[in-house]
Amino acid sequence: MDLATILGLVAGTTVVLIAILLGGNLGGFVDIPSVLIVIGGGFAATLMRFPLAGVGRALATGGKVAFMARTIEPRDVILKLSEMADLVRKSGPIALEGVSFDDQNLARGAQYIADGYDVVFIKDAMELARDRYLGRLAEGQRVFKSLGDAAPAFGMIGTIVGLVQMLSNMEDPSKIGPAMAIALLTTLYGAVVANVICLPIADKLSAKLDVEEVNQTLIIDGIMQVKAGSSAAVVRERLHAYLPDHQKQLPEAA
Amino acid sequence: MDLATILGLVAGTTVVLIAILLGGNLGGFVDIPSVLIVIGGGFAATLMRFPLAGVGRALATGGKVAFMARTIEPRDVILKLSEMADLVRKSGPIALEGVSFDDQNLARGAQYIADGYDVVFIKDAMELARDRYLGRLAEGQRVFKSLGDAAPAFGMIGTIVGLVQMLSNMEDPSKIGPAMAIALLTTLYGAVVANVICLPIADKLSAKLDVEEVNQTLIIDGIMQVKAGSSAAVVRERLHAYLPDHQKQLPEAA
Amino acid sequence: MDLATILGLVAGTTVVLIAILLGGNLGGFVDIPSVLIVIGGGFAATLMRFPLAGVGRALATGGKVAFMARTIEPRDVILKLSEMADLVRKSGPIALEGVSFDDQNLARGAQYIADGYDVVFIKDAMELARDRYLGRLAEGQRVFKSLGDAAPAFGMIGTIVGLVQMLSNMEDPSKIGPAMAIALLTTLYGAVVANVICLPIADKLSAKLDVEEVNQTLIIDGIMQVKAGSSAAVVRERLHAYLPDHQKQLPEAA
Amino acid sequence: MDLATILGLVAGTTVVLIAILLGGNLGGFVDIPSVLIVIGGGFAATLMRFPLAGVGRALATGGKVAFMARTIEPRDVILKLSEMADLVRKSGPIALEGVSFDDQNLARGAQYIADGYDVVFIKDAMELARDRYLGRLAEGQRVFKSLGDAAPAFGMIGTIVGLVQMLSNMEDPSKIGPAMAIALLTTLYGAVVANVICLPIADKLSAKLDVEEVNQTLIIDGIMQVKAGSSAAVVRERLHAYLPDHQKQLPEAA
Amino acid sequence: MDLATILGLVAGTTVVLIAILLGGNLGGFVDIPSVLIVIGGGFAATLMRFPLAGVGRALATGGKVAFMARTIEPRDVILKLSEMADLVRKSGPIALEGVSFDDQNLARGAQYIADGYDVVFIKDAMELARDRYLGRLAEGQRVFKSLGDAAPAFGMIGTIVGLVQMLSNMEDPSKIGPAMAIALLTTLYGAVVANVICLPIADKLSAKLDVEEVNQTLIIDGIMQVKAGSSAAVVRERLHAYLPDHQKQLPEAA
Repeated sequence: MDLATILGLVAGTTVVLIAILLGGNLGGFVDIPSVLIVIGGGFAATLMRFPLAGVGRALATGGKVAFMARTIEPRDVILKLSEMADLVRKSGPIALEGVSFDDQNLARGAQYIADGYDVVFIKDAMELARDRYLGRLAEGQRVFKSLGDAAPAFGMIGTIVGLVQMLSNMEDPSKIGPAMAIALLTTLYGAVVANVICLPIADKLSAKLDVEEVNQTLIIDGIMQVKAGSSAAVVRERLHAYLPDHQKQLPEAA
Repeated sequence: MDLATILGLVAGTTVVLIAILLGGNLGGFVDIPSVLIVIGGGFAATLMRFPLAGVGRALATGGKVAFMARTIEPRDVILKLSEMADLVRKSGPIALEGVSFDDQNLARGAQYIADGYDVVFIKDAMELARDRYLGRLAEGQRVFKSLGDAAPAFGMIGTIVGLVQMLSNMEDPSKIGPAMAIALLTTLYGAVVANVICLPIADKLSAKLDVEEVNQTLIIDGIMQVKAGSSAAVVRERLHAYLPDHQKQLPEAA
Repeated sequence: MDLATILGLVAGTTVVLIAILLGGNLGGFVDIPSVLIVIGGGFAATLMRFPLAGVGRALATGGKVAFMARTIEPRDVILKLSEMADLVRKSGPIALEGVSFDDQNLARGAQYIADGYDVVFIKDAMELARDRYLGRLAEGQRVFKSLGDAAPAFGMIGTIVGLVQMLSNMEDPSKIGPAMAIALLTTLYGAVVANVICLPIADKLSAKLDVEEVNQTLIIDGIMQVKAGSSAAVVRERLHAYLPDHQKQLPEAA
Repeated sequence: MDLATILGLVAGTTVVLIAILLGGNLGGFVDIPSVLIVIGGGFAATLMRFPLAGVGRALATGGKVAFMARTIEPRDVILKLSEMADLVRKSGPIALEGVSFDDQNLARGAQYIADGYDVVFIKDAMELARDRYLGRLAEGQRVFKSLGDAAPAFGMIGTIVGLVQMLSNMEDPSKIGPAMAIALLTTLYGAVVANVICLPIADKLSAKLDVEEVNQTLIIDGIMQVKAGSSAAVVRERLHAYLPDHQKQLPEAA
Repeated sequence: MDLATILGLVAGTTVVLIAILLGGNLGGFVDIPSVLIVIGGGFAATLMRFPLAGVGRALATGGKVAFMARTIEPRDVILKLSEMADLVRKSGPIALEGVSFDDQNLARGAQYIADGYDVVFIKDAMELARDRYLGRLAEGQRVFKSLGDAAPAFGMIGTIVGLVQMLSNMEDPSKIGPAMAIALLTTLYGAVVANVICLPIADKLSAKLDVEEVNQTLIIDGIMQVKAGSSAAVVRERLHAYLPDHQKQLPEAA
């Protein structure tokens, strides 16, 4: 669970709800057609920008990574890999079958070693899996960015449509206010969809893309070391180079 | 047929129509002079930006590629090319005359081989055709981008003109509303033309440009291999390097 | 004559005029002080950005190139240069005196050869003339861009001034509308000056700058070949490299 | 104390307060829910963009550096380092224990030398500390930038919510004005938070990041020289290269 | 005197004054608190962005260069330098004491030669002076840019403050107009400060920075030549390389 994303989304939504509830009831702010215009229009414009299959897959991967996929902790992975190296040197590759893994890629790499695939195959297969995953993440980032750009545009279109309708028919002055209120809802929805949901998620995915690229490469490099029968110490030392500076342990920093 | 473009355009248009019809009738939203101002102005500004002949050609190519041109499937092309290689090695180049092709460039390349042109000529001719095609695609992308930028500007100009007219003549208060409604229509048209049609198409063309560049180069490389009399296996292996990673076949990914 | 620029400008102006005339008479849209504010302000801000002498010269060159200067046709120039090469080899450099030229730079180069200047001088003189011309074109592009940026800003300033005046004096409600109409005129003028005239011209100049850089270099290279006494065939072949791909002639493309 | 930041913030706040007080009383401008919407929304969107732990740490470091952390004076540091070099050559590294330091990094480097750590360890440890510090500074800059971008967006959302509420319920005309006044407060808060506080701080941090990078590298280089037992003159000369040009002393500039 | 800057500023101010005076009297447009908000706020935000000492110095240098500092004429400087070279060869370096100079840097260089400083010292001292001057110019450019960005933001803040005050107190309808007029004044001031004054000056400084960098380097190179005792012809020829192309003299261009 990515706590920051969830906390931020909950806080952002709560802030908007408080703004609404303090001034009256929620009812006046719910308008299904307005939701349809902003969400539907945002998806329509995004659909035109991407290949058909890509949009759904990118949304799924992006949403999962932004909210749920716990970024793996490099320090833990290095520990696990050095244990695996130890195990392989003591009991042979087949012993990896009994190990349980948190991370899917790590598990797959261990399985390859246990199954006795050769080095070239394991490297190719794991790099391919990494590239697929990062590619979907990057497309997810672009899809959320496109939704965040298109939603306010359709919000504006919806509001202008509402204004034109209200202006064409002003015989009953008491209806002018409520009509304009409804016209403004699409602009509100567009701003909320973009600023509370889509653009922050796109930024989060962009940040995670950088982190995941390093982590996945660390795992592949570690699996290669385990396969080559390196000692736990060699694995640890080599993989420490992937750690961001503030996680490297220093004597005086404890 | 590019289903995503068509679905997106239909969905976007439907969303706008629903927004209009839910609040009344379509009649109040159709105003031919307003259409003329936005579409005419958009084309006028685009015309000034490009050479005269280029605008029409770029619109035609861009529209065709965004909506209809099915992106060729690299995997199918590689299969076809390896069959061609087989055929040429078994029955000689002339046998290619009997093969039917989906893709125009592939067909042209096969014809060159069957006709016995030399390697240098075929390479030059096909690369020239590719550069022409990609150049028209790039110009199409810029023309749709220019239309998407100019339409909202002329929409705003139309609305200000309408506001000035309404404000100069406010003796009959009952006419103020409808006059402003009509003034707002050009802004609405500008936003729809830009956000529902032109800018997404420009983005789609930009994405297709990248894909087509790889595909066309794959075809040229494959035709060169067939001309050189390579075996089907060599053709397949060499052209696999052009595949995006997620299309490379892996034993465990089935 | 650059037909696209002229057609685009006429079409853009017509569109704005139609928008005005359909809703009433032109009179209400002509306000000399408003014209002064937008045009004067635009030039004032542009003047501050550039050296004094540069603005006038850049406007003149830019306007001439955007509207009148027919881009030379590289294919025709290559033909002319190969004829000149032929002539020089047959009848000597002095024969160039009798040839008439469409393009000023080509004419100047031929004159240099006929006058017997040495290679280094001709190259330096022609490259200097080319750099001056391209420099003026680039400055013209920047001046039109600056005008297109400053005009809407002064349009907004004019409108705010008008609004403040109207709001300070609202005793006669019947005058509020017309006063606001006039206040909006500077915004309208600013949008028209920028979107119908200045920004498209700046874009056109930017595109011509790229084309002219290649063409002028082609002419200089060709004149050097003629001076060196190359054969017509050599001149033609060498200069073909300057042609954009879609103008190279292919056997099958006719 | 960074006087410019504090003066600027005080002046900016004073200007806004004067604007408010000149037109009436402060009371009408304080609305706790509006503060919650803008500040809460800004933090919510920022939280989604960054890892949970990072936001607090980045805010703390950024705020401290922007307001309090006196940028060290390179000239003083060079003087101190040359005195240290002198001391080490005269009385040995252990004598550094008696020296007092303004700058934490300088103190830590002196302690390392006094404790007799080897060159490689000192360099690694100090560079790591520098990278951590600069990394936190850079993240602080991004967090303040994100707050400055998100606050006006939530200000706009708050205003639209208020407008919708006001428009839905216009039976009592006397309440329209005050309701709209409150609706506008979130836009005001958003503009103030962004333009008076967050964006200038982000710019200040960005400028300090450049300065600190040079200063911290100067300190590390100086400590290395002291450790190597260089003479005070050599230390001074070598470190002068880090000074920005206008601080280098010239005979005629006194 | 930089005539273009002054003419542009006078013209821009005149245009705004004409816009005001044509519609009534100047009185309604002068509001000291509004001036304080825009100018004070602009400086407050700028102060936060830069070190305290830098803002004043940058404003002074920037203002002086944009308005008064006549850009030196490279052709004149080359002439002067070649005369100096002549003089030094004929009468020795001491003769330079009797020469009078328009340009301060040229004068300083001549003084150094007359005083008999060595080559390395003169080069270092003059390059340092040049770097200081260009550094102040660059900071001046950034300060005017920051003012031009902050002024409209504070203009908007002032207008929202005024709107909130007006909306909270609408009992006397006759006061609504004038109150809104005053509220709009800060927006007007912000737009004028940015578009008529600060942003064009920032652009002018940016252009002058490029020119001055070449000119100052030309002077340093020339002084080095004079110091080395080169002949007037050598100085002239070497320094001609610094001239922009359109100032190089050509036989046929007169």
